[in-house]
Amino acid sequence: MSTSLFEQHRARLDSALEAIRTRGYWPAYNEMPSPKVYGETAPDDGKRAFEAHLGKQFTLDQPGQTGWHAGERSPYGVKLDVEYPVCDVAALIAAGQQAMSAWQAVGCEGRTGICVEILERLNRQSFELAHAVMMTTGQGWMMAFQAGAPHAQDRGLEAVAYAYREQSFIPAETTWEKPQGKNPPLVMKKRFEVVGRGVAVVIGCATFPTWNTYPGLFAALATGNPVIVKPHPNAILPAAISVRTIRQTLAENGIDPNLVTLCVARDNETTQRLVRDPAVRSIDFTGGSAFGQWLDQNCRQAQLYAELSGVNNVVIDSTDAYKAMMRNIAFTLSLYSGQMCTTTQAILVPAGGIATDEGHKSYDEICADLARAIEGLLGKPEVAFAVLGAVQSPDTLRRIDLANGGTIGRVVLASRKLDNPDFPNGEFHTPALLACDAADEAFYMEERFGPITYVVKVADTAAAVALSERIVNTRGALTAGLYSTSQQVIDAMTHATWRSKVALSVNLTSGVFVNQTSAFSDYHGTGGNPAANASLADSAFVANRFRVVQLRYHV
Amino acid sequence: MSTSLFEQHRARLDSALEAIRTRGYWPAYNEMPSPKVYGETAPDDGKRAFEAHLGKQFTLDQPGQTGWHAGERSPYGVKLDVEYPVCDVAALIAAGQQAMSAWQAVGCEGRTGICVEILERLNRQSFELAHAVMMTTGQGWMMAFQAGAPHAQDRGLEAVAYAYREQSFIPAETTWEKPQGKNPPLVMKKRFEVVGRGVAVVIGCATFPTWNTYPGLFAALATGNPVIVKPHPNAILPAAISVRTIRQTLAENGIDPNLVTLCVARDNETTQRLVRDPAVRSIDFTGGSAFGQWLDQNCRQAQLYAELSGVNNVVIDSTDAYKAMMRNIAFTLSLYSGQMCTTTQAILVPAGGIATDEGHKSYDEICADLARAIEGLLGKPEVAFAVLGAVQSPDTLRRIDLANGGTIGRVVLASRKLDNPDFPNGEFHTPALLACDAADEAFYMEERFGPITYVVKVADTAAAVALSERIVNTRGALTAGLYSTSQQVIDAMTHATWRSKVALSVNLTSGVFVNQTSAFSDYHGTGGNPAANASLADSAFVANRFRVVQLRYHV
Repeated sequence: MSTSLFEQHRARLDSALEAIRTRGYWPAYNEMPSPKVYGETAPDDGKRAFEAHLGKQFTLDQPGQTGWHAGERSPYGVKLDVEYPVCDVAALIAAGQQAMSAWQAVGCEGRTGICVEILERLNRQSFELAHAVMMTTGQGWMMAFQAGAPHAQDRGLEAVAYAYREQSFIPAETTWEKPQGKNPPLVMKKRFEVVGRGVAVVIGCATFPTWNTYPGLFAALATGNPVIVKPHPNAILPAAISVRTIRQTLAENGIDPNLVTLCVARDNETTQRLVRDPAVRSIDFTGGSAFGQWLDQNCRQAQLYAELSGVNNVVIDSTDAYKAMMRNIAFTLSLYSGQMCTTTQAILVPAGGIATDEGHKSYDEICADLARAIEGLLGKPEVAFAVLGAVQSPDTLRRIDLANGGTIGRVVLASRKLDNPDFPNGEFHTPALLACDAADEAFYMEERFGPITYVVKVADTAAAVALSERIVNTRGALTAGLYSTSQQVIDAMTHATWRSKVALSVNLTSGVFVNQTSAFSDYHGTGGNPAANASLADSAFVANRFRVVQLRYHV
Repeated sequence: MSTSLFEQHRARLDSALEAIRTRGYWPAYNEMPSPKVYGETAPDDGKRAFEAHLGKQFTLDQPGQTGWHAGERSPYGVKLDVEYPVCDVAALIAAGQQAMSAWQAVGCEGRTGICVEILERLNRQSFELAHAVMMTTGQGWMMAFQAGAPHAQDRGLEAVAYAYREQSFIPAETTWEKPQGKNPPLVMKKRFEVVGRGVAVVIGCATFPTWNTYPGLFAALATGNPVIVKPHPNAILPAAISVRTIRQTLAENGIDPNLVTLCVARDNETTQRLVRDPAVRSIDFTGGSAFGQWLDQNCRQAQLYAELSGVNNVVIDSTDAYKAMMRNIAFTLSLYSGQMCTTTQAILVPAGGIATDEGHKSYDEICADLARAIEGLLGKPEVAFAVLGAVQSPDTLRRIDLANGGTIGRVVLASRKLDNPDFPNGEFHTPALLACDAADEAFYMEERFGPITYVVKVADTAAAVALSERIVNTRGALTAGLYSTSQQVIDAMTHATWRSKVALSVNLTSGVFVNQTSAFSDYHGTGGNPAANASLADSAFVANRFRVVQLRYHV
């Protein structure tokens, strides 16, 4: 059955393999939430499927269930009241281990076929998933659909493709024949078995519960490992829907569904007990650096793939498209109220201003024009609500208040709370823009997650490039940007990013934004600076999740 | 120049790539120390080249030299008195970093061509290297030649092939073109730069100073990193010769030779300062588990590839070739006086004895017959000296005394010291064979490096297989063996090794031994049990030694 799934999905896999080889534009799943693509009834069906979860118990039939847990708080202010099964951690681990050997026996092609089948099914649930992502994370609808469903599925398929490629290099068997001069050769048969490392834990984040979870989940699963998904306590529903679909697909294909389970942890101690269990051999984590470092220090039995905090930055040296540059940056800062791990936090501007197609612009003019660009973008409420979404965390609300208070930088543009008639209890906030000097490192040199951005006054372009490099090396970053009309500056910044190992976007002025990465083409994170120790996705992301155990004997 | 080297060595690289894909028998470098292969004058030239180092200062022209250091003690009892440059650790690190960007600029093909060229030159120095390995490690001549030169070069080339394959997947650039309905598409050019992680440290061991050093050295070098080779204080010469050749080859190809340096550390503090330096981003280590765990805990800034202690074991269930089995095991235990990380330490035998082609053999008969097989093998002095080599470490001599004392197991065969007229001051010792019960875990459950082996009495075959699995899971192992005529037992042991992740050799009775692995075919270590966290060599061994930094812009 699993082999037939491999054959059935062979064309898509081949396309994915070609995409990771060439890394051009290739979307496996359509990003338009359109009935023409997903079926006439898909939008309504998905909405109803989402609504059917609300106020109910989300059954998963997992082992060791000890109770139920609810508590998700929607940034849109709507009631969710979904209850999730709480299961004994040891029971989930034991059940995953139990399921592992049959999963190994299915082989690389069998696992790959089932993984792609799971992704196809998740794709058909895209509207349901999008509503779940939107209501738990606060993302606007379009982002929730795209990042929550097709783009997340793309990233999952990307991981499956890398996992397949690496596993398919391992020959199932070989004959080793060593000549012995005039004597008969020594001949051995060797068999090579691909074996998963062991139980994988994937810890999700509050803002991208599918996009940041699927790569690790599918990389671990495709390489032969049981997976325990530990979602953020405020974004359980998208993970629960995903896990249920995975379990159904596994069961229908003769695999013990307990290979993949959901771990809803009532407290941090439960999570810590889970990740420190000797049976846990890999951990994928998206979240803050403090817990990431704790994992690194305390879970030495496991491989850790971590995406952590950072200070993303953009250097502005010069431009021949001033207005377009401002519009582009304004959109980046506004999108999902800056709650992306890729959002720019520090914009480094020469103290003497910059040359533009509209003449020289002083540092103060740049600050003012960027504030105006943000206000212009968000002028119409329907646009503002669509772009901003809602603020996910009370911590972010506190950071916004702090920014508006003027104690951590001069307020160029204060964040404003917007009233959304559709969601009267939601938290809608425009970006805060702050100004400071390069010397004010305490202000801009730590991550202030959310819609808070600094325009940092730096001596000159060379100092800005050097500062960018130092920020990335010491604080980490997933994205860096540059605006310049000078090839020399572009080269200098390029070399700086080689040293600090951060992806660089140059002169973005149209429909591509520094905070967006495209699956199969852009590497998300380099794995080479403090913001992440791994990249989504590359060979290193999958190659160490399985091991090869050989058997040899004479024939 | 480097591109022409790539073209020049293209055929060999292609063969290596084919070999790692199919993993059959393929030696890149000839293992016979024959004038017909290496040239009529090669043996004499090599010996003279080796002798020319003795009693001299080994100049390397490295930065930050503060003095000279000697102190190698030959297990053959000959005087070496080579002095090596001692260099300031910070100077070596800074020089490596300085050399890195030009090495990056050469690109994957350029680096690959130079790495293969280095290996070709090392191959031409095989006799010189073999003498250096023999006299520092105590290996017998044939092993010193094979493992010290061609087999080590094979492992180096294997790492280069894996590194090339993974790097060659990264497209230098791509065009990303996203349709926009009726509007013109979004078009971006993306460039992908392969960037090494940073300074690599490769820590050698006392027994295989080239074989265990070349994989990490060439994996790190080929992926764009500077490398500092830190040899064991008693086996510096083979590393020094290798580093000199590497530096010469680099310089001749326009690369700063300080890309690769030798770090001779007078004390542990120097080594610790080296590996904890924030600039050090990867560490390859072969040695004891205690320092391996220290590295793991204290060098969190670096990727660690470690081969550590273990308890290799063989289960004997039954055989249809009793004498050949005994001969095979006897050779394994005798070769290089058991000073291999792959030598069997525990032979697990059912208490009720086993069925053989010579009828039933009791546990006691097996002990006695194995002792006889060892004595038979080593009966002729010239064979004994060739097979045993000399004992490298005073610690191993102490362990031999302990074994002979009878306090850590019943002495079946005591180790004997042999007098070698060619090397009157050398340390030549036959294997000690001890017997104990499975319950005597304190005896056999820790690594006793050297010629000390236990025949462990286990309740039955099933208990032996289970014990083997537990030993591997808890103490680690690089090798496991099985003798059985029952497919059911072979399957049970095979499944056990899948769970404990150790390579299994079944029914070895001729010219292949459980402690030998063949480059390009056998994975050395699985990386999945406590004896090693990485395998030599696979994709995981290379894929995380470089990162990809992208640059994107509109066109």
